[in-house]
Amino acid sequence: MKVIEIIKKDKNARLGILKTPHGEVETPVFMPVGTQGTIKAATHKDLKEIGVQMILSNAYHLYLRPGDDLIKEMGGIHRFSGWDNPILTDSGGYQIFSLGVLRRLRSDGVEFQSHIDGSRHFLTPERVVEIQKNIGSDIWMCLDECVPYPSTYEYTEKSVELTSRWAKRCKDAKKNGDGILFGIIQGGFYEDLRIKSARDLIDMDFDGYALGGLSVGEPKSLMWEMVDAVIGLLPEDKPRYLMGLGFPEDIVEGVKRGIDMFDCIIPTRVARNGGLFTWEGKINIKNAKYQKDKRPIDENCGCYTCRAYSRAYLRHLIVSHELTSFYLNTLHNIYFYNELLKKIREAIKEDRFDRFYEDFKLKWKGGEFCD
Amino acid sequence: MKVIEIIKKDKNARLGILKTPHGEVETPVFMPVGTQGTIKAATHKDLKEIGVQMILSNAYHLYLRPGDDLIKEMGGIHRFSGWDNPILTDSGGYQIFSLGVLRRLRSDGVEFQSHIDGSRHFLTPERVVEIQKNIGSDIWMCLDECVPYPSTYEYTEKSVELTSRWAKRCKDAKKNGDGILFGIIQGGFYEDLRIKSARDLIDMDFDGYALGGLSVGEPKSLMWEMVDAVIGLLPEDKPRYLMGLGFPEDIVEGVKRGIDMFDCIIPTRVARNGGLFTWEGKINIKNAKYQKDKRPIDENCGCYTCRAYSRAYLRHLIVSHELTSFYLNTLHNIYFYNELLKKIREAIKEDRFDRFYEDFKLKWKGGEFCD
Repeated sequence: MKVIEIIKKDKNARLGILKTPHGEVETPVFMPVGTQGTIKAATHKDLKEIGVQMILSNAYHLYLRPGDDLIKEMGGIHRFSGWDNPILTDSGGYQIFSLGVLRRLRSDGVEFQSHIDGSRHFLTPERVVEIQKNIGSDIWMCLDECVPYPSTYEYTEKSVELTSRWAKRCKDAKKNGDGILFGIIQGGFYEDLRIKSARDLIDMDFDGYALGGLSVGEPKSLMWEMVDAVIGLLPEDKPRYLMGLGFPEDIVEGVKRGIDMFDCIIPTRVARNGGLFTWEGKINIKNAKYQKDKRPIDENCGCYTCRAYSRAYLRHLIVSHELTSFYLNTLHNIYFYNELLKKIREAIKEDRFDRFYEDFKLKWKGGEFCD
Repeated sequence: MKVIEIIKKDKNARLGILKTPHGEVETPVFMPVGTQGTIKAATHKDLKEIGVQMILSNAYHLYLRPGDDLIKEMGGIHRFSGWDNPILTDSGGYQIFSLGVLRRLRSDGVEFQSHIDGSRHFLTPERVVEIQKNIGSDIWMCLDECVPYPSTYEYTEKSVELTSRWAKRCKDAKKNGDGILFGIIQGGFYEDLRIKSARDLIDMDFDGYALGGLSVGEPKSLMWEMVDAVIGLLPEDKPRYLMGLGFPEDIVEGVKRGIDMFDCIIPTRVARNGGLFTWEGKINIKNAKYQKDKRPIDENCGCYTCRAYSRAYLRHLIVSHELTSFYLNTLHNIYFYNELLKKIREAIKEDRFDRFYEDFKLKWKGGEFCD
């Protein structure tokens, strides 16, 4: 099955249609993160109104709670949650490796203790595929090892070998007719290991390729070096997914290099802390300067929050610890990211992505607060 | 100005139209509580979609944060918050007296320390009227003293005298053309003091009368005795408001006695703890029995939560501490209360409130969890 159809290219930037069991998705796409099967503080109708095409969830979290067996019994994640657009599940490799002392790596899989109740678990590549099959998500990810930054060459080299072996086992565990499976390119911050990882996975012929283990504390320039090292190797007719990124400026950079898919907790997490995106940068709505500001967050934004609420009132809500604040801020940031990707796709369609990129960077004040 | 028009009576139950600067409200009405100017976890569009006619906010809370001067500068609470339907503000008497050791009663007003930052404040009846004028709410409440249960006869007697003196000062502070001002009947749990309080206030000719200081820990039968002691004294052509109540069964009881207005934190607060109303009683959605329950909260409910989500998924959300849970549960309970009042109004309109009352009580399993 052809998972992506590339409709148009503007230099390296790609406009495509991703085909999933729950419908088509225009790429480049940004997937808001719903770790436990829901985007925190948002509802399905909000996401649909905004135009969110696809969300990300996490196989590790859903396996622990409510359990992949329960989700299977309920008819899969779409029926269980009521969200009927595509869902990609991350395998949870990243989450498991973030557990630190709570996990122990074995050559056949990974042992860990639940972050919820301390119960002991053992996950193999085969089981991770089975979990995602039970969940019934549209796109599945292989179990991988995500190495910390910095890690030694020797450790990273062994880790790439392990990730490749596990990828092969995931591929073998997947039956014909099952969901779409992506391999995850690792290799830390060693160009040759990144290339080795990419080649190993490409040889296995996955439905799509993800770049994992990035944005884990390294300098941004180093991260883009790793992307640049492998992006040219990836088959043109398969989707490319940059995992866990990022700020608007990162997405624009990724698209420029030929990335099709993004996910990140940033828009939703910073929203809950009062960080709101405008087309000039991110503002901190808690700032005293907004106390009497009658303007919306961004005068060019069409989201519900901007249509119905002032900065002054949004500041009052967050300063007063009101739950409505989480909700309104989340809607705005998801809308902002969705608009960003819409504008990116339009620019590629009209062969003016370079100009869009330059204009964006000219106005954009970066991921930190600009106010 | 005639504040309420009684359209129809069915025995003591009254169907009316409450007239406020921000529009008309059909009574009996239930006002969800938005202490700090917002219903916790809900948005204006949700409330409008549900058909919420009027909300309650709290002058004491808004005075402390963001400040009545700021709200005035922003053009009043309606412009500041964006909610354009009527708003009633409680004076905060109840909240101030709940502060315990943090407040000191003086004959001219009440001294207290802010529950937010410990700062010292002094509020007089005149200032409380001014605060509500600055806030720009549609209906204002007098500053009153709410006595705890139990209190001695002597203390309660003096307190009624104070509340009456303060009520007079509030009335005098209100200028012609200002908002609608309600007096609050106190008197603890002494029938003759309740009657004295009611007579004092009726003599002052308020725009409406509230019954305060009830549901503060006393047996329910005693509470209804206090209501019954005064309800017959109240002028037919003025609105009657039972403050801070209650469970659905209390609202039905209140309407039967001729109450027009209700407010309570119950639907929103219990929602956040997983208590969801059905037409048979309140269920606890955290209960393990809902783990695989594909049904909506109530099969006869038309709210968004019931149309889009199953009990199993709502249980997953609350057990997983997801913010979306607060939101969806809140919407459901507000919808339920709104429907209850709609059904009550229809029953009065069609001269069948007694039958409605009997039918409701037959199915209803009370305010406690019924599952």
